[in-house]
This record gives sequence, C-alpha cells and structure tokens, in this order.
Amino acid sequence: MGQQPITFLRQVMALCTYPNLLDSPSFPEDAKKRARRILQACGGHSLGSYSASQGVNCIREDVAAYITRRDGGVPADPDNIYLTTGASDGISTILKILVSGGGKSRTGVMIPIPQYPLYSAVISELDAIQVNYYLDEENCWALNVNELRRAVQEAKDHCDPKVLCIINPGNPTGQVQSRKCIEDVIHFAWEEKLFLLADEVYQDNVYSPDCRFHSFKKVLYEMGPEYSSNVELASFHSTSKGYMGECGYRGGYMEVINLHPEIKGQLVKLLSVRLCPPVSGQAAMDIVVNPPVAGEESFEQFSREKESVLGNLAKKAKLTEDLFNQVPGIHCNPLQGAMYAFPRIFIPVKAVEAAQAHQMAPDMFYCMKLLEETGICVVPGSGFGQREGTYHFRMTILPPVEKLKTVLQKVKDFHINFLEKYA
Amino acid sequence: MGQQPITFLRQVMALCTYPNLLDSPSFPEDAKKRARRILQACGGHSLGSYSASQGVNCIREDVAAYITRRDGGVPADPDNIYLTTGASDGISTILKILVSGGGKSRTGVMIPIPQYPLYSAVISELDAIQVNYYLDEENCWALNVNELRRAVQEAKDHCDPKVLCIINPGNPTGQVQSRKCIEDVIHFAWEEKLFLLADEVYQDNVYSPDCRFHSFKKVLYEMGPEYSSNVELASFHSTSKGYMGECGYRGGYMEVINLHPEIKGQLVKLLSVRLCPPVSGQAAMDIVVNPPVAGEESFEQFSREKESVLGNLAKKAKLTEDLFNQVPGIHCNPLQGAMYAFPRIFIPVKAVEAAQAHQMAPDMFYCMKLLEETGICVVPGSGFGQREGTYHFRMTILPPVEKLKTVLQKVKDFHINFLEKYA
Repeated sequence: MGQQPITFLRQVMALCTYPNLLDSPSFPEDAKKRARRILQACGGHSLGSYSASQGVNCIREDVAAYITRRDGGVPADPDNIYLTTGASDGISTILKILVSGGGKSRTGVMIPIPQYPLYSAVISELDAIQVNYYLDEENCWALNVNELRRAVQEAKDHCDPKVLCIINPGNPTGQVQSRKCIEDVIHFAWEEKLFLLADEVYQDNVYSPDCRFHSFKKVLYEMGPEYSSNVELASFHSTSKGYMGECGYRGGYMEVINLHPEIKGQLVKLLSVRLCPPVSGQAAMDIVVNPPVAGEESFEQFSREKESVLGNLAKKAKLTEDLFNQVPGIHCNPLQGAMYAFPRIFIPVKAVEAAQAHQMAPDMFYCMKLLEETGICVVPGSGFGQREGTYHFRMTILPPVEKLKTVLQKVKDFHINFLEKYA
Repeated sequence: MGQQPITFLRQVMALCTYPNLLDSPSFPEDAKKRARRILQACGGHSLGSYSASQGVNCIREDVAAYITRRDGGVPADPDNIYLTTGASDGISTILKILVSGGGKSRTGVMIPIPQYPLYSAVISELDAIQVNYYLDEENCWALNVNELRRAVQEAKDHCDPKVLCIINPGNPTGQVQSRKCIEDVIHFAWEEKLFLLADEVYQDNVYSPDCRFHSFKKVLYEMGPEYSSNVELASFHSTSKGYMGECGYRGGYMEVINLHPEIKGQLVKLLSVRLCPPVSGQAAMDIVVNPPVAGEESFEQFSREKESVLGNLAKKAKLTEDLFNQVPGIHCNPLQGAMYAFPRIFIPVKAVEAAQAHQMAPDMFYCMKLLEETGICVVPGSGFGQREGTYHFRMTILPPVEKLKTVLQKVKDFHINFLEKYA
C-alpha cells in the first residue's frame, strides 16, 4: 500500500542480521546500541539461534517496561510476557489453553459481532462454542454491557461461557472504547468469572481527537485489588499494525495476568512444542517497544516517520467517513481507530434476489460486482458477522491519500449505479 | 555452540531487510541478485508485508527446483510446496488435518521409538493415539518392516492407524535409512493405506561414507505409478539444521504429494488463520534451496564455509562414536547422520534403586548427576522413548572439536565413577 518501513527499525534489524555492519559508519550509533543489546541476549549472540520458548529475556523486559510507561506506572512483570508469532499465534494459543476438551458442557467463547474472523476460525478449530454479542452500530459500534448480559445468559443454556474477547480499537468496526465502557466490561467479567482476552493490536491507531486508547490492564489495576488480583486477562500486541506495519516479521507479544501458576506451566509446555517464535520478529517487537528517545541520534527521523504514517491514517480515516456519508444508501460510523471503514450499505430487494439466484450472500454479491467492475477488492460484512438483514463491507484505509480518493470515488460511482440498476 | 552463520545467507538477509544496502559496494553481486529477486516477489517489495498463506510464490518455485535437482530430475510442483514456520509447524499442521476428531475409532499415528518429542506432544494435543514402532538398536537403529507390521496389527484393536511418521536421518538415533528400507516402508504404507510423513530435516547431515540420503519422494517415484500416484506423502525440511543452522528464523517447507484437492483446500484454510509464515524465514529458506553456484562471486566462500561445518560434524560424529565405545558400560551405534549421539548406558541396580527412591527414571537420575557433577546437560532416553529396561541419553555433537573432546572425556570419567559408586 506504499507505506515505507520505519528506517530505524530496519537499520537495527539489518545490524542484528549481519553484525559485520556494526563497523559500518553508515549506521547511527543508537541503532547499533539497540542491535548490540539484542544480540547480547541471543544464544550465540545471533538471531539464528533458538530462543527460550517464552522469548528472549531482555526483549520481555523491554516489553514490560513499555507497558509500564504506556499505563502510567502500572507495573508489568517480564514473567507475564510471552513473545509470539504475531498476535494471531498468541490468541490461538491462549484459547487452546482455555478451552477444555469434550464433555457435556463445551466451552463458550464470547466474541463481538462484527468480529475479526481469526476468532470464529480458532473457536471452530478447537470445537468450542461461539457466543456472539452484538456491537451497537447506532451508537458508533459501542460495546453495551446489557448486550453482554443477554448473550451470556442465553449461552448458559447450552455451554459453559469462560472467555470474553474484546477487540479495541475494533476490527473491522474501528471504534475506540471509552474508559467507562472498559470498566463496565471488567466488572462484568469479574461477576461472571470470565477470562478477558483483550486484542489491543491497534493501540497506536487512534484518530478521533475525542478518543484515547485505554488498556484493559491499566483500567483493571485502577479499579482496585478486588479486580486486579482476581480478573484473568491476556492482552495482545503486534508489530503488524500501528505505525510500523511490519506484518511479515510475525512479531508479537501477550501479557497474561492472574493466570494460575499450574496453567502457566502448561502454557509454556504448549509453546515449547513449536520451540520459539521467530527471533527476527522478536527483535522487531523490541524496537517497537524500545524506540529512539529524545536526545538520541535517530529520534528526529523516527518521530517524523511515525507521525507521518499516523497523521496520514487520521486524515484518511476522516476522508473516508466523510465521503461514504455523502453517498445515498451508505452510512459510515466515524473511524475512531484501527485501519478500516466498515460502512453499512443498502442493498435493494432486486439485488438481494439476484444474489440468491447466484447462491451468494447479498453483500458478497455486491463485493464481487464491485471487484468485477472497478478492480477494487473489499470484504463482505458476512465474513465478519452482522445483524440479520444488514449489509456492510470492510475496506482498508491504507492506500496513499490520492489513491484512496480515487478508490472512494469509484466505490461511490459504483454504488450509485448499483442502486439504479437494481432499483 | 560456536558455529558461525553462512556469510552469503546473512548477506542476502541483510539486503532484504534494509534495501538501501543494495547500493553498498561491500556486498557481492550474487547476494544482491538473490535479494532483488526475493524482494521483487514480496508484497510492496518488502519482507514486512504479509505473504500468501502458502508462502511467497517465487520461493516455492525455488524449493520445487531444489527438490527436482536433489532427486535427480523427479519433478516437483510449486503448488505442492507450503512454506512453514520451521518444520515443527508443518508437521503439526499436517497432523491436525489428518487426525479426525473424536468418535469411537480414534486416529492412530505411528512413530518410531526413540522419537523426537514433537510427535508425542502433538499427538497428545490432538487427542490421537500414539502407535509405537521400535527401531532396531542391535542393527544400527534400522527400521524393520516386520516391526511396522506388528505395531499396526496390534494398534488396529483400539484405533484406526492412518499416519506413519519416519525420521530420516534419525533424531535422536542418527541412523540413515537404506534405499531398500525406504522401498519396504513405502510398500507397507501402500498396503496399509497409511499417509507417510517423512521428517527429512537432516537431509544434508550424512557423515558415514557408506550412507547416502534418499528422499522418500524420489524412491516413491522410482517405484512406479502404482505408488507415485497413490501413496500420500508429506516431507519436511528446515533452515534450522544442515550446514546453516538458522533455527531462529523459523524457516521451513513441506512438500505434499497425492493429497486430495478438497483436503488441500482445507489445509490452506487452516494455514490462513495464522496469516503467513515469517517472511524473513521464507527468505532464509530460499537461500538454502538456491545457494551460489560455480562461477558466481560468492561460490568459493560459500562452499568453503559449508564444507567446513559438514566436515567438522563428520569428524565429531566419528570422534564421539569412538570415544563412547571405549567406555565400559556405554555402547554407541555409528552416528551416520543428524547431529546427535544416542548411546546406550548401563545403569547398575543400585543406581536404579537410588533413582526410584528419588522418584526419577533411572536415566533421568543419571543425567541429573552428570549435570550436577560436570555441568554437562544431556537429555535422558526416557524423554524420547526406549525399549523397557534399556537406558540412553542424547548428546549433541555441535560443540567445536576441542570442546567436544573435553566434554566426552568428562562424560567418560563421570560414567566410570558412577559405575564404581553404584557397583
């Protein structure tokens, strides 16, 4: 999508990969310092060695220090940090630990609708029960605790709900949860003894000036010891999103709070079967949590590059919302965070019938027509889940501004045409 | 263990990581050529983008070309190649596809004893049935088809044997299978309609002058169409072993033959949940299958480094076998391949009783004593499985020659002492 890598991150990675470069005058000293520190902590001072299954020690320490800074001093323990192969790996591993096999009462896992399909796929892979709670589209996709209550009560008839998954900022829905809402969710999890699974991979991607990212960990601690000593929480982060977008390195971590020591032992055992997460991805994660600071040689360039990516994303979020809302038959909530628009689209009855004739979901039919007529690929809402009778698609806002404008204009023209054609 | 990375591999990786280096005169042209080719095939020409879940196309093509060369012209199809997060990931993914859930007749998976514990762990994770077949220690750990027949017949009473796992060269046992033996195994798999899973990650690690690596794929094709069109086979390779030893990058591939197209579809779906294997590991795999060739700038240095690692390993394999066989109460089969010695050790009755008093397996007791008295860490045979009443340990031969000599001398002294102490 044209987004350039953050120079500092790639410099440190290149130095770690080929340490001969540590003698090269073309690399800044702060990058060399980071690379030496990472290599020092690696077996044989090399990215090529296996690490401990939980990840390289000093990187887990850097992650803990990052979380402590992010959460205004709420302590983080490196022993609770697990480096992972992207966030997906962490999420599926924790779910595997939490879902108990077979028996009459299968494990229920609560997920938002719309959801990111990793959740439904892993739940199905583990033979657990997917328990849907619906986000409130009329209210900017907010999470409403009454809806959680409804969902858990209904689920108890046919399964044992044990896990509550939250995606904040939301994917595909782009909402950023308020502090109050997070408190309510934590209280609900405490009441119902649910394990909280907070997917916070978009924590750096908040655009609306009236929104802020609040981590579940921080709010949990601020709610006092009754919560912070009892509510079990796993939260996830990744090198793939934010301003860095380094998806290919498959870097990530999870922080796990209040997990019983015996279960922690099982978790490490499970992780050790696959030996370790890629050490190159661990190194990338280190740079994300330990970036240049004021006074360091690379600080200015790093900050400029980071602000440019995030500033552009904010601009594109607004642009997308505004344009979609000018189109008759499209309604788009504010893109408060993450990287996607998830507009609601009106699909005329005749188009629904045409879709049925092709044995396609109506929004799938719509997206295929869009692809055929414009070459633009978006994902139908039915892939994420949506309230019955409503239709959506997910579109990324990653393309460069000018390209995105063209894309939006083409979608608009297509949509108007589509409405006419099936009027 | 002191083994240095292969320069060419790290040069290409550094160029891919930080493409500014493509302008640097300090990197050889053939490394730049490889890096440009890999980047050209990556999304956004960057290791930082997700790849297709099956892996980068041109890397799968290079893997297929490598297999074709290795197997003397037997064709390999890039569509049958799946890049993986190390071989472990490939093995567990294929097993997940092959093991059908629950029901009265659980899936039996045949594995060698001694085995590499990934197999028993994944089988247990998947709730499948582990079906042991014993390697023949008296015959250099050879695989005997009569033993396969015994194992499968007995297993049929309580499960449905569907998969036969082979590790060649063997881990922890170091044997290299003869061509005749591979033919027998393939014929047996054909008779019993078993899916063959050939763990061939040590294919470059063959030391005995009278042994050669034969791939299951090649033998399968040479046995004619009745076999090559019917026997289902997955074989695995990795960047972690061989002469490169790049474990940390988690690079690997599997080649899957005769898999039903619908199952292939399920396989890709399963892989796509975790998005893609690390692209840096994929790039490392590419360099392994597409190394410098005669006439290229880096060929001489690359060949020297490769031969040095493999030559040293061969020397250390012989050294280890010879020294162990001089010690009373230790018997060590020839280390024909892989990276380990798996000597049989005599443990006196009094030591067995002392172990029982500590609620330890006798070889665990032995290994703990060795660790405490010498600081040398080896893995007890009970971690890999062994015939009842026999004891072993696995020791790597990776340390540099002089260090390995010291290690072996210390193990020898310890063992003689141990025999005296518990006589």
